[in-house]
Amino acid sequence: IVVIAGPCAIEKKAIIIEIAKSIKSAGAKGLRGGAFKPRTSPYAFQGLGVGALKYLKEAKRETGLFTVTEVMNISQISQVAVSADVIQIGARNVQNYDLLKAVGRLKNPILLKRGMSTTLKELLLSAEYVMSGGNHKVILCERGIRTFEDSTRFTLDLNAVPMLKKLSHLPVFVDPSHGIGIREHVGAMAKASIACGADGILIEVHPKPEEALSDGPQSLLPGQFFELMTELKQIAKAVGRDI
Amino acid sequence: IVVIAGPCAIEKKAIIIEIAKSIKSAGAKGLRGGAFKPRTSPYAFQGLGVGALKYLKEAKRETGLFTVTEVMNISQISQVAVSADVIQIGARNVQNYDLLKAVGRLKNPILLKRGMSTTLKELLLSAEYVMSGGNHKVILCERGIRTFEDSTRFTLDLNAVPMLKKLSHLPVFVDPSHGIGIREHVGAMAKASIACGADGILIEVHPKPEEALSDGPQSLLPGQFFELMTELKQIAKAVGRDI
Amino acid sequence: IVVIAGPCAIEKKAIIIEIAKSIKSAGAKGLRGGAFKPRTSPYAFQGLGVGALKYLKEAKRETGLFTVTEVMNISQISQVAVSADVIQIGARNVQNYDLLKAVGRLKNPILLKRGMSTTLKELLLSAEYVMSGGNHKVILCERGIRTFEDSTRFTLDLNAVPMLKKLSHLPVFVDPSHGIGIREHVGAMAKASIACGADGILIEVHPKPEEALSDGPQSLLPGQFFELMTELKQIAKAVGRDI
Amino acid sequence: IVVIAGPCAIEKKAIIIEIAKSIKSAGAKGLRGGAFKPRTSPYAFQGLGVGALKYLKEAKRETGLFTVTEVMNISQISQVAVSADVIQIGARNVQNYDLLKAVGRLKNPILLKRGMSTTLKELLLSAEYVMSGGNHKVILCERGIRTFEDSTRFTLDLNAVPMLKKLSHLPVFVDPSHGIGIREHVGAMAKASIACGADGILIEVHPKPEEALSDGPQSLLPGQFFELMTELKQIAKAVGRDI
Repeated sequence: IVVIAGPCAIEKKAIIIEIAKSIKSAGAKGLRGGAFKPRTSPYAFQGLGVGALKYLKEAKRETGLFTVTEVMNISQISQVAVSADVIQIGARNVQNYDLLKAVGRLKNPILLKRGMSTTLKELLLSAEYVMSGGNHKVILCERGIRTFEDSTRFTLDLNAVPMLKKLSHLPVFVDPSHGIGIREHVGAMAKASIACGADGILIEVHPKPEEALSDGPQSLLPGQFFELMTELKQIAKAVGRDI
Repeated sequence: IVVIAGPCAIEKKAIIIEIAKSIKSAGAKGLRGGAFKPRTSPYAFQGLGVGALKYLKEAKRETGLFTVTEVMNISQISQVAVSADVIQIGARNVQNYDLLKAVGRLKNPILLKRGMSTTLKELLLSAEYVMSGGNHKVILCERGIRTFEDSTRFTLDLNAVPMLKKLSHLPVFVDPSHGIGIREHVGAMAKASIACGADGILIEVHPKPEEALSDGPQSLLPGQFFELMTELKQIAKAVGRDI
Repeated sequence: IVVIAGPCAIEKKAIIIEIAKSIKSAGAKGLRGGAFKPRTSPYAFQGLGVGALKYLKEAKRETGLFTVTEVMNISQISQVAVSADVIQIGARNVQNYDLLKAVGRLKNPILLKRGMSTTLKELLLSAEYVMSGGNHKVILCERGIRTFEDSTRFTLDLNAVPMLKKLSHLPVFVDPSHGIGIREHVGAMAKASIACGADGILIEVHPKPEEALSDGPQSLLPGQFFELMTELKQIAKAVGRDI
Repeated sequence: IVVIAGPCAIEKKAIIIEIAKSIKSAGAKGLRGGAFKPRTSPYAFQGLGVGALKYLKEAKRETGLFTVTEVMNISQISQVAVSADVIQIGARNVQNYDLLKAVGRLKNPILLKRGMSTTLKELLLSAEYVMSGGNHKVILCERGIRTFEDSTRFTLDLNAVPMLKKLSHLPVFVDPSHGIGIREHVGAMAKASIACGADGILIEVHPKPEEALSDGPQSLLPGQFFELMTELKQIAKAVGRDI
């Protein structure tokens, strides 16, 4: 089981390197961080852009973590493909078919997030768009769907984990941070994700969530992440797996 | 952590007693079985009614398991309250306020199932209907909500577990059998339920699911339940609890 | 096309009679008003109960309007059946099957409201519960479903109107007041209801919505209702029908 | 009120011209037709591409209808912007922010379709992405949201019409064809759209729906469209407007 952690958006070089070191010491294998951020409002922080990719590379050099970052359009792909290891397609672009075809021509693994109202069948067909281009390294990622329930940010749909593992050979990851969207409950959902068979999880971590430019309320503090990792290892063991 | 198991509906005396013995040997503490069944169609099997309550009592006498059964209307309450230990209010009656008030006058614990589109806030207010009558022994139970996703029977909403435990002192149970509705995935969701903090789970078990008069496709075979219990105990241990 | 109007709950004799007269003068044929109110919280106003039924009868005597009121449990049925013309089954009781069977033994028409997450197929099967008892006078009523959209109270699902009229011979009504839940938009949805084929609509009207004990924000003022009726008559004419 | 009609996808020159003439004679002002089609499966017909734009221009030349077609990625924009009058952003790209920014630099009006699970607030923020680039000619278009109801293709959410008209000065269109997705009910929803205040509607029309390469089951025959237009004109008149 692979744990990927990091901030929602890359904000400053010092912060991303600090986070990378702390998650590495807790046992994470991958570092996530957004350079290009798809934000609901045009007036919200849109990500540092290309500059952030350098910080990500430097964080990789210092820690050895593999890196994951999102592309939002075709013109960003060439730069991102050489700067990061895994390319993320975000929930809002899960049916942006030309983007899917374009990353289907890469060799990087693609982390494909389920959209807010994408059925599992549609998610698998979006994965087909990537794979039909020749790139078979697709990771499916559940990150919360939209329902009537309004006390959580989204409804993390863990039913997707056993279902997708039955329907496909692709690895299935879960992003409990976006899914439930409430810091104190991220840990519970991360544990549940592993218990039901997830092959990996993504956790948002930020040293000062109250100052984060994006998604602070759902980010764990490094200390919380460290404790969570200890618990996750025990759950993994209980289901016969390792982190 | 309390595990309750049994058939959806009580069908024959021999079967319910066979199931009771087998789940008891696997480590379950409670036996569930419906005498009165709320079925979507008036032409579907509606439950054996009062006769089934006798079988439930006999199964209890033989095994020592506590029993759980549903009431659908006020006139059934007095008979059910003396025949079973825990009274279940089903998802379709979660906002049947007169029924809630009526069971609020009992001493039996009430297992209150969340409706298919009940928000957590509404569920807690339905629990208030019971408790305002003096009966504080309410168990909240997540059993799947209705969403756009159509590859599972419902969408089991495990986010409800940490949320309800934060918002209320009441025990929180999960019914993964109804929630995902597909036999081979019930185990994964049961494990996830315990990992994210559930205080109990309900599992449907039937020796011949293909002949069950209700919910066969989501019922485990006794052997599958036995194996699942072994796995659940390990998950429980990993989160510092016991089954 | 039949228009039924009135307050959510019957509060005082003078008010219900005032409303009855004003909606009658605007062209309504039926008067709605709740004596027993299913409220989400046990601490909210629960309706005047039996006393309100007298006011309803008096309002009928003074105006000649037929009356519609809700029953929430079986014990209320006998009294309500002689006090009101049409018996309403509310959204929360659409799958309260014993209640459906009980009203299936009456001669009064039954206004059956769709639940917040009832599929059309399930609604028709709930109607079967009534009809299988011998009472074929069932009126189906769309009143808003629960979706992710949170800027309206519910999502009034007008697609239900042509669908139900295709699937069934039963009359199809719409309750735009509960559906959209915002006074200034009730008129638009009422017009749309008639345009897509509804056989009747229910409109909440209250002379002092800000003092209403229930659902004030979605109630029209009598003057607004009067104006709306003029517009509705034109829409009805445009689709070849009469109000 | 503006009526736009046409096939889902442009298939052959002769067909698009035949359709254009027939909808023109029925009173439509705009011709819709897809050259680039965002299809859920990579193995489904993906649209004729650039070639189709020529047919669209020719259909415009022969009929004088303005034309509407979709862009799916930034590289298509320059060609489409000179070939068609109105640029459509489809439901799957409603939060493809770079695409929104790119069409925000055009002078063509942008028809922005609401996504399957886009809240009204999010739709307005997506419109902001276009407008913040300087292009204020945005048309909002409701086309059905995803809910639990499975008897219709989507749930056309007409509540969006009065809500959006209250929240914004932008014109609000409705696409009942995609919304309900069933030919025989498109007319009912089109009438309802106009009754609740829509400024325009989009209707799929195809002379041989059973041979259409996309969305045949929801396309009207030209004769049906002609009849519908007569009815729509009467509804428009009833709400004080003209088609």
